[in-house]
Amino acid sequence: MVYIQRRETFSASHRLYNAAWSEDQNEAVFGKCSNRYGHGHNFQLIVTVKGNVNPDTGFVMNLVDLKEIMQREVIEHVDHRNLNEDVPFLKGIMPSTENLAIAFWERLAPAIAAKGAILHGIRIIETENNFVEYFGA
Amino acid sequence: MVYIQRRETFSASHRLYNAAWSEDQNEAVFGKCSNRYGHGHNFQLIVTVKGNVNPDTGFVMNLVDLKEIMQREVIEHVDHRNLNEDVPFLKGIMPSTENLAIAFWERLAPAIAAKGAILHGIRIIETENNFVEYFGA
Amino acid sequence: MVYIQRRETFSASHRLYNAAWSEDQNEAVFGKCSNRYGHGHNFQLIVTVKGNVNPDTGFVMNLVDLKEIMQREVIEHVDHRNLNEDVPFLKGIMPSTENLAIAFWERLAPAIAAKGAILHGIRIIETENNFVEYFGA
Amino acid sequence: MVYIQRRETFSASHRLYNAAWSEDQNEAVFGKCSNRYGHGHNFQLIVTVKGNVNPDTGFVMNLVDLKEIMQREVIEHVDHRNLNEDVPFLKGIMPSTENLAIAFWERLAPAIAAKGAILHGIRIIETENNFVEYFGA
Amino acid sequence: MVYIQRRETFSASHRLYNAAWSEDQNEAVFGKCSNRYGHGHNFQLIVTVKGNVNPDTGFVMNLVDLKEIMQREVIEHVDHRNLNEDVPFLKGIMPSTENLAIAFWERLAPAIAAKGAILHGIRIIETENNFVEYFGA
Amino acid sequence: MVYIQRRETFSASHRLYNAAWSEDQNEAVFGKCSNRYGHGHNFQLIVTVKGNVNPDTGFVMNLVDLKEIMQREVIEHVDHRNLNEDVPFLKGIMPSTENLAIAFWERLAPAIAAKGAILHGIRIIETENNFVEYFGA
Repeated sequence: MVYIQRRETFSASHRLYNAAWSEDQNEAVFGKCSNRYGHGHNFQLIVTVKGNVNPDTGFVMNLVDLKEIMQREVIEHVDHRNLNEDVPFLKGIMPSTENLAIAFWERLAPAIAAKGAILHGIRIIETENNFVEYFGA
Repeated sequence: MVYIQRRETFSASHRLYNAAWSEDQNEAVFGKCSNRYGHGHNFQLIVTVKGNVNPDTGFVMNLVDLKEIMQREVIEHVDHRNLNEDVPFLKGIMPSTENLAIAFWERLAPAIAAKGAILHGIRIIETENNFVEYFGA
Repeated sequence: MVYIQRRETFSASHRLYNAAWSEDQNEAVFGKCSNRYGHGHNFQLIVTVKGNVNPDTGFVMNLVDLKEIMQREVIEHVDHRNLNEDVPFLKGIMPSTENLAIAFWERLAPAIAAKGAILHGIRIIETENNFVEYFGA
Repeated sequence: MVYIQRRETFSASHRLYNAAWSEDQNEAVFGKCSNRYGHGHNFQLIVTVKGNVNPDTGFVMNLVDLKEIMQREVIEHVDHRNLNEDVPFLKGIMPSTENLAIAFWERLAPAIAAKGAILHGIRIIETENNFVEYFGA
Repeated sequence: MVYIQRRETFSASHRLYNAAWSEDQNEAVFGKCSNRYGHGHNFQLIVTVKGNVNPDTGFVMNLVDLKEIMQREVIEHVDHRNLNEDVPFLKGIMPSTENLAIAFWERLAPAIAAKGAILHGIRIIETENNFVEYFGA
Repeated sequence: MVYIQRRETFSASHRLYNAAWSEDQNEAVFGKCSNRYGHGHNFQLIVTVKGNVNPDTGFVMNLVDLKEIMQREVIEHVDHRNLNEDVPFLKGIMPSTENLAIAFWERLAPAIAAKGAILHGIRIIETENNFVEYFGA
């Protein structure tokens, strides 16, 4: 079993805000992340796929395919977008980095499985100081 | 003459959109950067100050002071903000990285001069691929 | 289960030297790391916390709290300090990166547990070439 | 149990090409990676070793020894080399990053064991977007 | 006058070898860089363009255009190529990083001028330790 | 004229403290940088050399020579050292990054000139946020 990883990037805006709460509660929990007009990040998405090495290619999975899946399933939907407003598969989800990781997993896992490989983990780098990892439910 | 540099970071959202133009013109020039609800970046601001070295301190300028000026004049106003909506000193300015550099210069130069040093240049890193430098008018 | 990570940095000096050994033994094992007046590094401390995502916040743990714990329990004690001389909780401990990871774990684990989350791992980046990871005893 | 990591770098060229296939098949699977005269990368090799901390040294393993093993077993053979032509231990192996990780493991594991420590994992960073990890058979 | 910078990357192989010299001379001057089958790098190309800011766009030059020029004039010719064998505009040129910078300048300067902007400088990062800058003849 | 750059690293400790001042003055100006037992950094030293390209080699200067000069004149003296105590050529000099740049210039400029090239600039990266550049008196 070998693990391969592919990094793609996207620039997006978001706002952490719970509409069921008062302004004061939002401010207390989310602080500047709840500012009305949002803020943004250069997100890095790193996907880990595991599998055996194909003896003909030396590949666990062709990175061209993995890149295409990451672009089609995630990046095209979130790059240069507002994660609260613009992304149908994030509707109704608080766009914290934790929840992004889970939502991306749900789209990437079947697409990678359809290529005969196994999604192992997702890593999202939100800033140079904050990261999230998710390995499935 | 020695040059010192200090880096600070901020996360903000913006939208490149010229209200005097049609939607088609905006799309043609700004592409995905003109999406309605904006997008965002982790910006890095690097300020270069030049001067002679003080023989008592070994400093061109105390970096504690430079950090405090960068925070007070720029970072506190733009971090976790929407650059089109939230920042009084950017009102009416297209928030391209070029224009941010010029606007930040105008606030930083007098504050640094008040400490007896000279602002030499401003560098803004918008993404890992796009940067701007400005050395004054 | 989702894993979140927070990075904080500190600049410190240390010396690897075993007082029970001769100078020659110290030189043979520790080389330049045993130089009398010490040397230093910009250390990076990356803490991984695991837990379930709170549906109201989208958070495993509020990063504001994690940052505050890392600052209070570790960074304030070691930043701009000599790890052999200045840090009470390191007294009598060889300040190798391995031992720093263990000592930091012992301070961070209960503080994170008190916030209802679980410390999963500690990573210390000592130089761009040397790192340590620790996941508890 | 503590994990230590050491990074070393090498610059090498390679070509992904299966001689049992037609040109068209090679082009379809490997694309530009199959160009006749090869291409190259600045590879980063990160080795993880696990073990208990020696109370006299504070070390899992002396990094001077680990560096020497990495240089002798891997880096001296691959740095500034063509991985298809120049490396005896890679003869007959498709030099994909996956296969490099396995081949390096086979050389590093016994050398590290001979020093009383345990090879835990190998990570190869091929480009800023593509990485591989291997933890043994 | 504002300076904008765009980074693109390419992975290529090369060999430093002067055919007019003996093997010994090549070895003495170029060392491992003259190995017969070449080696390679992940090169980073950073182009600096200067100009005034267009008041309608906030741009010195549209980065979409600059990216397209860098791809068309340089990256498509050198990415995943052998710089000694595969690149017509490098024929007869020792592919040192210095000479790459000059050759790239000659292709980029007129293409950028055709868009009404001015090429200011070229930076090539060959490894994490070796870089070249060129500002024209 | 082409500019080449070489990066080397060193890990050192230092203390910013003016013995002519009271403790309170030192604390007011240098803060935590004046702690008695010092602190440390992973410094990066980047040297820029300018010159014409030799048509036989494609080099401004052989990087092997530049590396050797940087090691011999600077790195061997400061790596894993205390900059206040251990370095003869820094005796009596406040080891601020500004003063390091000037002191390194004085050693590097003649050694580089002896190889027929010209030292253009010195850049020292002290932390990920603080840098100094010096281009000679």
